[in-house]
Parts: sequence; structure tokens; C-alpha cells
Amino acid sequence: MGGAGPSIPVVIMGLGHIGRAIGRAALGRHGLVVVGAVDRDPALAGRPLGEVLDAPAPDVRVSAELGQAIAGHPTGAVLHATGSRLDQVLPEIQAIVRAGWHVVSTCEELAFPALDHGDEAKALDALCEQHGVAVVGTGVNPGFALDRLPALLAQTVGEVRHVHAVRVVDVSSRRSGLQRKVGVGLTPEAFDAAADRGEIGHVGLAHSAALVAESCLGLEEYEVDEELEPLVAEEGDPGPPRVEAGQVAGVHQTARVFAEEREVVRLEVVLALGAERPRDEITIDAEAHLHLTVEGGLPGDLATAHAVVNAVPAVMERHGLLTVLDLPAGR
Amino acid sequence: MGGAGPSIPVVIMGLGHIGRAIGRAALGRHGLVVVGAVDRDPALAGRPLGEVLDAPAPDVRVSAELGQAIAGHPTGAVLHATGSRLDQVLPEIQAIVRAGWHVVSTCEELAFPALDHGDEAKALDALCEQHGVAVVGTGVNPGFALDRLPALLAQTVGEVRHVHAVRVVDVSSRRSGLQRKVGVGLTPEAFDAAADRGEIGHVGLAHSAALVAESCLGLEEYEVDEELEPLVAEEGDPGPPRVEAGQVAGVHQTARVFAEEREVVRLEVVLALGAERPRDEITIDAEAHLHLTVEGGLPGDLATAHAVVNAVPAVMERHGLLTVLDLPAGR
Repeated sequence: MGGAGPSIPVVIMGLGHIGRAIGRAALGRHGLVVVGAVDRDPALAGRPLGEVLDAPAPDVRVSAELGQAIAGHPTGAVLHATGSRLDQVLPEIQAIVRAGWHVVSTCEELAFPALDHGDEAKALDALCEQHGVAVVGTGVNPGFALDRLPALLAQTVGEVRHVHAVRVVDVSSRRSGLQRKVGVGLTPEAFDAAADRGEIGHVGLAHSAALVAESCLGLEEYEVDEELEPLVAEEGDPGPPRVEAGQVAGVHQTARVFAEEREVVRLEVVLALGAERPRDEITIDAEAHLHLTVEGGLPGDLATAHAVVNAVPAVMERHGLLTVLDLPAGR
Repeated sequence: MGGAGPSIPVVIMGLGHIGRAIGRAALGRHGLVVVGAVDRDPALAGRPLGEVLDAPAPDVRVSAELGQAIAGHPTGAVLHATGSRLDQVLPEIQAIVRAGWHVVSTCEELAFPALDHGDEAKALDALCEQHGVAVVGTGVNPGFALDRLPALLAQTVGEVRHVHAVRVVDVSSRRSGLQRKVGVGLTPEAFDAAADRGEIGHVGLAHSAALVAESCLGLEEYEVDEELEPLVAEEGDPGPPRVEAGQVAGVHQTARVFAEEREVVRLEVVLALGAERPRDEITIDAEAHLHLTVEGGLPGDLATAHAVVNAVPAVMERHGLLTVLDLPAGR
């Protein structure tokens, strides 16, 4: 709880929008010291980190190579934000683990890799044990709003029959990358084609649903399905971004868990321009009923950045491939 | 996550209202096996536990002595519910630790004994380390609604300036012990006298406030004050319990934390007959503002029982004197 022990060395890997938010959160976090940063963009290599983050930073320059960034520190935590898909980021994660550093990553599929990458997850867990370090995937979603928070609440309600959680985000004020990811401005046909290519939608909803099934209901055998539908603008909106009537304004995505053919978990995200009543809402049907609302919703990228940074002290004390369910409530 | 590993032996200590709820929750919890029960009431000694709990139970009889209840099991967890004050329960907790068993207790002051029993807390921590076991105090309040839940939420919002949390409980439908504890039916004068003797009010609010100060704000130096005021009935209520106009219908209790003379935490509980809009409400003023509501409120004794039972697997893997902030979000 502050103060105790020396500061933990951290390196920021990936200086996109989220990585920069993580960098700023880490600079302000008591108990961490930012000793390096890595990005593969040649335009960033060698630049002072403070300049890239637009924040007062110690004398650290962006490296093109992990080895340079961690040099001089036998261990620490890499705060990793380079991609959503496990296949994309696994070689990076493995390299960090082999270097003896812990990893806290925003890779959405890393929130629960056992779901669809069972073999890779087992091998990564073994690699972590071999090097005595821990890896965890976290953020606000997946990692908090639709999995860790329901899991905590479920500890107080007895036997759980069903969990329903909804996150509604108005993407008007959010970065353009997120707006593109939810299909803003596409025709419904282009949306469907992009969705089929896996380019549209929120990655990690099925992973959150599986975490809820395992933690809230104690399930080991279950099926997860996921649906994606475009939300089409009924009227034009001058923006920015400009959207015509009939074009896509966002996405409504649903992940459901079934056990013995009964729906036991339903998670929904609505990510749309002008989405009504942004909020997080959790309903648990159990021995005791529970209904929680966060009007306005938990914050987005800022919450992801702080969730990553606040996971570090607990992760440093562990080893193996973790999930957010292993992390303590206190920061 | 279910299934893995053998069941954990647990013993229920204290078979009052809460202890019996814990017993029933433990019987239904996958991964635990109830191997014993202890109560000092001679009328209970020797009785079948299932009869006392009014629930199907294995062949276990209530013992008058801890030694009998744990016999045959080198370790396990004692689920302890015999008192609110640390001074009352410390000899029991010490005896359990010396026997090599872990403790999950509803003792309110044990939620954060460092606050007002610093020396005892240090000695208990050392005793736990010596015997390789862990002790934690938990429940719904303290232990969840006003401390662990705000602590988890604060992980997503950046630097915290102020935390305000309110728990409103309508005690009409709650057990008579709780109604007495909040002064229902007393004159305001009798309330004040009983409050001065420490017989009235919710124990543990200051402890929750300190947990919030340390976890959400990272404070080490702070002052906690606490106030208790009677809520007086304006009209008579035929009950039960019957309350006349001018008599006390409940209590409004406030704990505040100050750091550098600024209020940084304010926790309030309203425990009253017919309290309006029962709820839990948490407001965090931080880099990102957050406002959470649980209309109707988290459950009471049932939530305490399940919080205790769900803490067991994590506690078995630890040693030392813990707080709920050390426990993972997953059950």
C-alpha cells in the first residue's frame, strides 16, 4: 500500500493510442518507474519518451528492440499494447518471458486464451513457470466491466443461475480507430463483408463470457456463441464523423454461454455513435438477486491504462499464465 | 474453478444467526467439506449439525471444543462468527492458528485490525507466519460493499481525489438482533447512553474507511473520525417491531477520512425501519468520475455467508494476516 519496497521497473511496449495512455498512467503511478519503451515504428525509434507521451518523463528514449529497452534490469514488467489477437502477439510475449520479465498485456484474446488457444495457453503457462514470471491480459473490456466486476459481485449472492451484463458506449467522443472498428460509415453490405473478415467488432467478448461462466457459475463444460449486428442510422448525422441515413452507426454484439442447452450468461456491448444511455449494467439471477448500474459507464481507454498499471504489483509476485480473476481487489 | 484438487476441510465456529448461514453456504459450496462445528452453548453440544442448520449435512455433531472439531485433519479453514470486537475473539483466533488451521472470520474489527489494534495485529501476523496459515476478516460490511468493491473500481479511474459510499438497509425484514443493534424502539436519550457504551451501531465502518483510504488513495497517513446519530420516528409504526413517534427507528452512521485536513473518504450507513430506497451507492471523484448504484442493495447476512465461504480457497494458499484487498476477484 504505497511506499513499501523499491520501485518496479516497467517498459512500455507499443506506443499507439492505448500504449501512450498506459505510459502516462505508469509515469503517475507510485511504485513504478518507467525504464524503457519499445515500438517497431522507425519514426519513433530514438525519440524521447516524454515527447511521444506529451508528459513529463524521465530520460528514456524509445527503442526499436526489446533487448535495448530492458537492458540493465534483470526483471520488471512489460506493459504490452501491440495487438488484439494472440497469434499476432505471441512471439513478442514469449520473447519477454524468455528475458525473465513479467507481462501485463491489453491483447484481448490473452484475457482468457484457454478459450480458443488451448495448446498455446498451456505452452505459455509452462514457459512462464520455467522463467518464474507471470503473464496476464487485462483492460476495461475484456478484463473488468464484463468479467472481473461480475466475478467479484457473484461472491456475495450464492448459487448463480444467470448473469446478464451490458456495456453501452457512445463512440462519438472516442478515437477514430474505435469508430472504424465498429463500422461507422459503412454500408450494411460492407459491414457484413468486413465482419466476415474479422475486421469489425469488439475482440474478447466471448473470452469475458467464458470467464464469467467459470467464475460466477463454476462451469467447466459449456458452449460460447457470439453474434454481431450492425446498427444502421435512421437519420443522417453531420458528425464528425459524418454518417448518412442507411449507413452503419455502430455495432451490437452479443456473447452467450450455454450449459446443458440452457443460456447461463449473456454479455452485450453496444458501441455506436450517439448510443443512448451509455452505461454498464450487471444483473445476476441467484439465490440473492443483484442489479448494478454505472450510469455513464466505466471509462474506456483511461480505465484500460489504469487497469494495466494497477495489475503490476500483484503480477510481480506471481508466476504462470494468469487471468484477471487471479488479481486482488486492492491496487 | 471447480473440480481441481481435493475438497478443503472446514469447521464452523459460532452457530448464531450468521454462523448458521455460513454453515448452509459451506454445505452448498463445491470444493469445501464441512468436517466439524463448534459452539460454546452447552445446549448445542453433541447435536447433529444438520438439525442445527436445518439443512442436509454430513454426519457431523456440534462440539464444545475446537480440538474435537478439527481432530483428524492436520489443516483446513475455520469459518469463525462469534463476535464483532477483536478483544473478544483474539484468543479463539490465536488458538485456531496455533492448531495450524486458517481462519476466515466475520469479526468486524478483524477487517482491518491495524487501524486500532496495531500491536495485536503485528503479533497475530507473526503467529500466522510461524504456523504457515492465513487469517482474514470479511463479510458484506465490512469486507465488501464499502471497501472491497470501491477498491476494485478505483483500479480503473486514475488518481482518486474523494470516495463517497452509502449503504442504506431497511431493517424491517431483518433479524431482531440487527434491529436491536441499531436502537429500534429506544428513546433518543437511551440511544445516546447505549451508544456511549458502544452497544449501538455498526462495527467496522471506520475500518472500511481506512481500507478505502489505503487502497483507493494510496494513503499511509490519515485520520479517521466516526459519528452516530439516531433516526427518530416522526409517526408511530405498528410493526413488528412496534415503534412510537419520538422513538428511535434506526441509525445513520458516518465515517470520514482526512488527509492533510481535507476530507478524502466519506462512508455512510443508514440502518433503519422502513429506510427509503435501500441501496448501495459508490461515487469516486478521480481522473475519471465514476458513479455506481445497486438498487435494493447487496444482500445482507446471505452475502456475508457467501463472502466468507468464497474466501476460503484463496486464503488456503496464503499466510499471514490478510485483508479482503488481498483476495482475488474470482471465487
